[in-house]
Amino acid sequence: MSVEDIHIPVMYEQLEDIQDDFDQVDVELMRVEYKLTRDLYAKREKVISQIPNFWPLVWEQAPPDIDEHIQMEDAKLIAASLKHMSVERFELPDGDPRSFAIKFEFSENEYFEDKMIEKKFWYRHGKDDFTGLVSEPVEIKWKPGKDLTKGLLTLAKELHEDDKAGKTGDTQNKIKLLKLKENATDDSNSFFNFFGFRGHYITEEESREVAKTVEEERKARQEGKEVEVKMDKDADGDVDIENDDDDDDDYEYEYKYDVFPPGANVALAIAEDLWPEAIRYFQEGAELAAAESDDDGADDEGGEMDEDEDEEKPSKKRKA
Amino acid sequence: MSVEDIHIPVMYEQLEDIQDDFDQVDVELMRVEYKLTRDLYAKREKVISQIPNFWPLVWEQAPPDIDEHIQMEDAKLIAASLKHMSVERFELPDGDPRSFAIKFEFSENEYFEDKMIEKKFWYRHGKDDFTGLVSEPVEIKWKPGKDLTKGLLTLAKELHEDDKAGKTGDTQNKIKLLKLKENATDDSNSFFNFFGFRGHYITEEESREVAKTVEEERKARQEGKEVEVKMDKDADGDVDIENDDDDDDDYEYEYKYDVFPPGANVALAIAEDLWPEAIRYFQEGAELAAAESDDDGADDEGGEMDEDEDEEKPSKKRKA
Repeated sequence: MSVEDIHIPVMYEQLEDIQDDFDQVDVELMRVEYKLTRDLYAKREKVISQIPNFWPLVWEQAPPDIDEHIQMEDAKLIAASLKHMSVERFELPDGDPRSFAIKFEFSENEYFEDKMIEKKFWYRHGKDDFTGLVSEPVEIKWKPGKDLTKGLLTLAKELHEDDKAGKTGDTQNKIKLLKLKENATDDSNSFFNFFGFRGHYITEEESREVAKTVEEERKARQEGKEVEVKMDKDADGDVDIENDDDDDDDYEYEYKYDVFPPGANVALAIAEDLWPEAIRYFQEGAELAAAESDDDGADDEGGEMDEDEDEEKPSKKRKA
Repeated sequence: MSVEDIHIPVMYEQLEDIQDDFDQVDVELMRVEYKLTRDLYAKREKVISQIPNFWPLVWEQAPPDIDEHIQMEDAKLIAASLKHMSVERFELPDGDPRSFAIKFEFSENEYFEDKMIEKKFWYRHGKDDFTGLVSEPVEIKWKPGKDLTKGLLTLAKELHEDDKAGKTGDTQNKIKLLKLKENATDDSNSFFNFFGFRGHYITEEESREVAKTVEEERKARQEGKEVEVKMDKDADGDVDIENDDDDDDDYEYEYKYDVFPPGANVALAIAEDLWPEAIRYFQEGAELAAAESDDDGADDEGGEMDEDEDEEKPSKKRKA
């Protein structure tokens, strides 16, 4: 064994600690950002509320991470009925700035009865070493024959109740869900399944406990104490930085029964891109609409090409 | 004309002002971030310097925005010789946090004589309503027959000298550059052309003047004064939010003679992603290397598939 081999695991632990420190700075920055932007968002709200179709136009320009999940019917519904939306960091000022709620307000429409649909995301720490966003399924009161999720949303809710009741193993609902997912095509995967996303099942208590343990280990390590690491080791004792193999198993297991596996990433794309950058997306949409009406739709192909060119073009005001 | 039609242009201006306010908050946040992370970066530096191949491994995991420009020979050079790199916000603490310098340190190699190559980016405001990063070509002392840019970098430097000397029109260098670019294939477009990127030609004086004018107009508008807008209007008097048509012309003109048109975006990807997230990219690279040595290379296809799955998988610790 060379000198390098001996030292590298220690280096890896040091790198992890430094990365943790960077993450904590990010959280701190989110708090500062919240304070600096609160009034500005309120001001934006006022102006936006006077512009008809502001949000539908923003959603039309949604970035790929979001847009790829929006099917034709979803787009129709959003274009015709999305009145308003907001992202709220509901645990602030004292709690975790990484938790947030996305609220959608809809006008009367042919699909559902709801006027307001809210989806909450909690930033949680799990015993399985997971940290990230988890959620609970939200039900939508679909009008008869109009359920765009083809029953998946309702099933997600039932599965969640099973979990809360401690039912494990292959429950009837799990078997039913796998069958429904099997028969789903890409086109039938409505964006509204997003409201069924759950992610890892981690209670508030579990999260609090794990966060406390991790913090204690961290402090001990900083003080130079020998720490018996309770998690983060493979069976063979290797220090496996991110436990990637286990992750894959977890992923298989945790998202197998999720009606919208990429839910956390879509939520982040909404909260950290679509929502803060809404004015820019709206401007893009307005320009495009103006260009199209100038062209009288005669130059569709040229329009597409312009769009491609834009991607190569250094953006004028790219958000830092 | 309906009531809506009368009010919308005013709304648009208000939206632009709000967006400007958000942008100023972003700049302020960059200052706060700089203060909160300075010591942490110094600490990271110390640990990194003890890990052989840290930076080559990070670059191997570079995100697509960067990676798509790295050709085979570039990758070989980076893997064998990149010793160190850094990003410095050189106008701080008092100046603009959006300007930065990227420094690369190389060990002795078969391609060039330089031990250190530095590329500076200045955040500037142009009379043409452009705001963003501009740069100056950096020369590399290639060893005989080893110029990966096939003369483009040298030509970029000469073109820049022409611009500084006020030479306009179709100079000999411009004609030569167009011919070289015409004959270049994707594979021959070395990443090292990045060092030749210039972007809009905007002097420090021009930038200062424009910034001052914009700020004065902004203040006047906030105080409710009628402002004669000096820029940002089409010939036909339409308020065209981002002047998109003009942009396209500008783009054609400004980047036609650039040896690396996407330079600003690549620079941002380095400064805002690769550099701050270096530990995560390194960890990914180390895991991948470990997995590959476990597999003995026998299961290449499976490895690829795992990678694809990762993309769908909600990231464990996604940077906020």
